[in-house]
Amino acid sequence: MTRVVARVIVTPKPVVNDPQGITVKQGLATLGFREVEDVRVGKYIEVSMEAESMHEARERVDAMCRQLLANHIIEDFHFEVDQVLHRDTHR
Amino acid sequence: MTRVVARVIVTPKPVVNDPQGITVKQGLATLGFREVEDVRVGKYIEVSMEAESMHEARERVDAMCRQLLANHIIEDFHFEVDQVLHRDTHR
Repeated sequence: MTRVVARVIVTPKPVVNDPQGITVKQGLATLGFREVEDVRVGKYIEVSMEAESMHEARERVDAMCRQLLANHIIEDFHFEVDQVLHRDTHR
Repeated sequence: MTRVVARVIVTPKPVVNDPQGITVKQGLATLGFREVEDVRVGKYIEVSMEAESMHEARERVDAMCRQLLANHIIEDFHFEVDQVLHRDTHR
Protein backbone atom coordinates (compact mmCIF):
# COMPACT_ATOMS: atom_id res chain seq x y z
CA MET A 1 0.00 0.00 0.00
CA THR A 2 1.10 3.53 -0.79
CA ARG A 3 0.24 6.53 1.34
CA VAL A 4 -0.80 9.47 -0.82
CA VAL A 5 -2.22 12.95 -0.46
CA ALA A 6 -4.60 14.31 -3.09
CA ARG A 7 -5.01 18.07 -3.47
CA VAL A 8 -8.33 18.86 -5.13
CA ILE A 9 -9.42 22.28 -6.37
CA VAL A 10 -13.10 22.84 -7.13
CA THR A 11 -14.03 26.09 -8.91
CA PRO A 12 -17.32 27.57 -10.15
CA LYS A 13 -17.56 27.13 -13.93
CA PRO A 14 -16.70 30.35 -15.81
CA VAL A 15 -20.35 30.87 -16.89
CA VAL A 16 -21.68 30.50 -13.33
CA ASN A 17 -22.24 33.53 -11.09
CA ASP A 18 -19.87 33.67 -8.13
CA PRO A 19 -21.36 35.95 -5.44
CA GLN A 20 -18.54 35.04 -3.01
CA GLY A 21 -15.99 36.21 -5.56
CA ILE A 22 -17.87 39.49 -6.12
CA THR A 23 -17.97 40.11 -2.37
CA VAL A 24 -14.25 39.41 -1.98
CA LYS A 25 -13.46 41.72 -4.92
CA GLN A 26 -15.50 44.53 -3.29
CA GLY A 27 -13.75 43.93 0.03
CA LEU A 28 -10.34 44.14 -1.63
CA ALA A 29 -11.33 47.37 -3.42
CA THR A 30 -12.45 48.87 -0.08
CA LEU A 31 -9.01 48.02 1.33
CA GLY A 32 -7.33 49.83 -1.57
CA PHE A 33 -6.58 46.90 -3.89
CA ARG A 34 -8.15 48.62 -6.88
CA GLU A 35 -5.97 46.80 -9.40
CA VAL A 36 -8.05 43.63 -8.88
CA GLU A 37 -10.25 42.92 -11.90
CA ASP A 38 -11.88 39.64 -11.02
CA VAL A 39 -12.04 37.20 -8.12
CA ARG A 40 -13.34 33.63 -8.22
CA VAL A 41 -13.73 31.63 -5.02
CA GLY A 42 -13.63 27.85 -4.93
CA LYS A 43 -12.82 25.01 -2.57
CA TYR A 44 -9.56 23.32 -1.74
CA ILE A 45 -9.81 19.76 -0.41
CA GLU A 46 -6.82 17.75 0.80
CA VAL A 47 -7.47 14.00 1.02
CA SER A 48 -4.96 11.73 2.83
CA MET A 49 -5.47 8.10 1.88
CA GLU A 50 -3.93 4.75 1.08
CA ALA A 51 -3.91 3.18 -2.37
CA GLU A 52 -2.43 0.16 -4.14
CA SER A 53 -0.75 2.41 -6.70
CA MET A 54 -0.62 6.00 -7.88
CA HIS A 55 -2.81 5.01 -10.84
CA GLU A 56 -5.46 3.56 -8.51
CA ALA A 57 -5.23 6.64 -6.26
CA ARG A 58 -5.97 8.95 -9.20
CA GLU A 59 -8.96 6.84 -10.26
CA ARG A 60 -10.38 6.84 -6.71
CA VAL A 61 -9.93 10.59 -6.29
CA ASP A 62 -11.57 11.20 -9.67
CA ALA A 63 -14.54 9.11 -8.47
CA MET A 64 -14.69 11.06 -5.17
CA CYS A 65 -14.84 14.33 -7.11
CA ARG A 66 -17.63 13.08 -9.38
CA GLN A 67 -19.69 11.57 -6.56
CA LEU A 68 -19.27 14.08 -3.74
CA LEU A 69 -16.61 16.79 -3.87
CA ALA A 70 -17.75 18.68 -6.98
CA ASN A 71 -21.18 19.49 -8.41
CA HIS A 72 -20.46 18.93 -12.09
CA ILE A 73 -23.43 21.07 -13.19
CA ILE A 74 -21.89 24.26 -11.84
CA GLU A 75 -18.31 23.36 -10.87
CA ASP A 76 -15.07 22.21 -12.46
CA PHE A 77 -12.41 20.27 -10.58
CA HIS A 78 -8.81 19.29 -10.97
CA PHE A 79 -6.39 17.56 -8.65
CA GLU A 80 -2.89 16.29 -8.18
CA VAL A 81 -1.84 13.21 -6.22
CA ASP A 82 1.52 12.96 -4.44
CA GLN A 83 3.11 10.07 -2.65
CA VAL A 84 3.79 10.67 1.05
CA LEU A 85 7.19 9.26 1.90
CA HIS A 86 7.21 9.68 5.67
CA ARG A 87 4.24 8.78 7.80
CA ASP A 88 4.50 11.85 10.01
CA THR A 89 5.03 14.37 7.23
CA HIS A 90 2.68 17.32 7.31
CA ARG A 91 2.89 20.13 4.80
CA MET B 1 1.49 46.91 -16.76
CA THR B 2 1.40 43.14 -16.57
CA ARG B 3 -1.77 41.11 -16.34
CA VAL B 4 -1.42 38.33 -13.77
CA VAL B 5 -3.53 35.69 -12.08
CA ALA B 6 -2.83 34.74 -8.47
CA ARG B 7 -3.99 31.36 -7.17
CA VAL B 8 -4.32 31.45 -3.40
CA ILE B 9 -4.93 28.43 -1.17
CA VAL B 10 -6.08 29.03 2.41
CA THR B 11 -6.13 26.03 4.75
CA PRO B 12 -7.03 25.56 8.42
CA LYS B 13 -3.84 25.28 10.50
CA PRO B 14 -3.01 21.65 11.40
CA VAL B 15 -3.87 22.23 15.09
CA VAL B 16 -7.30 23.73 14.28
CA ASN B 17 -10.43 21.59 14.18
CA ASP B 18 -11.91 21.22 10.71
CA PRO B 19 -15.57 20.17 11.01
CA GLN B 20 -16.06 20.52 7.24
CA GLY B 21 -13.23 18.06 6.67
CA ILE B 22 -14.70 15.59 9.16
CA THR B 23 -18.09 15.81 7.43
CA VAL B 24 -16.55 15.24 3.99
CA LYS B 25 -14.56 12.27 5.31
CA GLN B 26 -17.75 10.71 6.72
CA GLY B 27 -19.56 11.33 3.43
CA LEU B 28 -16.76 9.65 1.49
CA ALA B 29 -16.82 6.65 3.88
CA THR B 30 -20.60 6.32 3.39
CA LEU B 31 -20.00 6.21 -0.37
CA GLY B 32 -17.46 3.38 0.08
CA PHE B 33 -14.21 5.36 0.07
CA ARG B 34 -12.99 3.72 3.28
CA GLU B 35 -9.31 4.16 2.40
CA VAL B 36 -9.56 7.87 3.21
CA GLU B 37 -7.76 8.65 6.48
CA ASP B 38 -8.08 12.42 6.72
CA VAL B 39 -9.73 15.30 4.87
CA ARG B 40 -8.99 19.01 5.31
CA VAL B 41 -11.14 21.61 3.59
CA GLY B 42 -9.86 25.05 2.70
CA LYS B 43 -10.52 27.85 0.26
CA TYR B 44 -9.20 28.46 -3.23
CA ILE B 45 -9.21 32.08 -4.43
CA GLU B 46 -8.23 33.13 -7.94
CA VAL B 47 -7.41 36.83 -8.27
CA SER B 48 -7.04 38.42 -11.73
CA MET B 49 -5.23 41.75 -11.55
CA GLU B 50 -2.75 44.14 -13.11
CA ALA B 51 0.68 44.88 -11.66
CA GLU B 52 3.82 46.79 -12.58
CA SER B 53 5.91 43.63 -12.21
CA MET B 54 5.73 40.05 -10.97
CA HIS B 55 7.58 41.15 -7.83
CA GLU B 56 4.98 43.84 -7.11
CA ALA B 57 2.15 41.39 -7.84
CA ARG B 58 3.51 38.93 -5.24
CA GLU B 59 3.79 41.69 -2.63
CA ARG B 60 0.24 42.88 -3.29
CA VAL B 61 -1.22 39.36 -3.12
CA ASP B 62 0.68 38.69 0.12
CA ALA B 63 -0.89 41.87 1.55
CA MET B 64 -4.37 40.79 0.36
CA CYS B 65 -3.94 37.45 2.14
CA ARG B 66 -2.84 39.11 5.37
CA GLN B 67 -5.57 41.77 5.34
CA LEU B 68 -8.60 39.88 4.04
CA LEU B 69 -8.26 36.47 2.43
CA ALA B 70 -6.82 34.48 5.36
CA ASN B 71 -7.38 34.65 9.12
CA HIS B 72 -3.82 34.16 10.32
CA ILE B 73 -4.93 33.00 13.78
CA ILE B 74 -6.49 29.82 12.43
CA GLU B 75 -5.43 29.61 8.79
CA ASP B 76 -2.30 29.23 6.67
CA PHE B 77 -2.03 30.47 3.10
CA HIS B 78 0.19 30.05 0.11
CA PHE B 79 -0.10 31.28 -3.46
CA GLU B 80 1.46 31.34 -6.87
CA VAL B 81 1.34 34.19 -9.38
CA ASP B 82 1.40 33.61 -13.15
CA GLN B 83 1.59 36.07 -15.97
CA VAL B 84 -1.41 36.04 -18.34
CA LEU B 85 -0.15 36.34 -21.89
CA HIS B 86 -3.44 36.69 -23.76
CA ARG B 87 -6.21 38.91 -22.55
CA ASP B 88 -8.99 36.44 -23.32
CA THR B 89 -7.30 33.37 -21.88
CA HIS B 90 -9.38 31.45 -19.38
CA ARG B 91 -8.08 28.35 -17.66
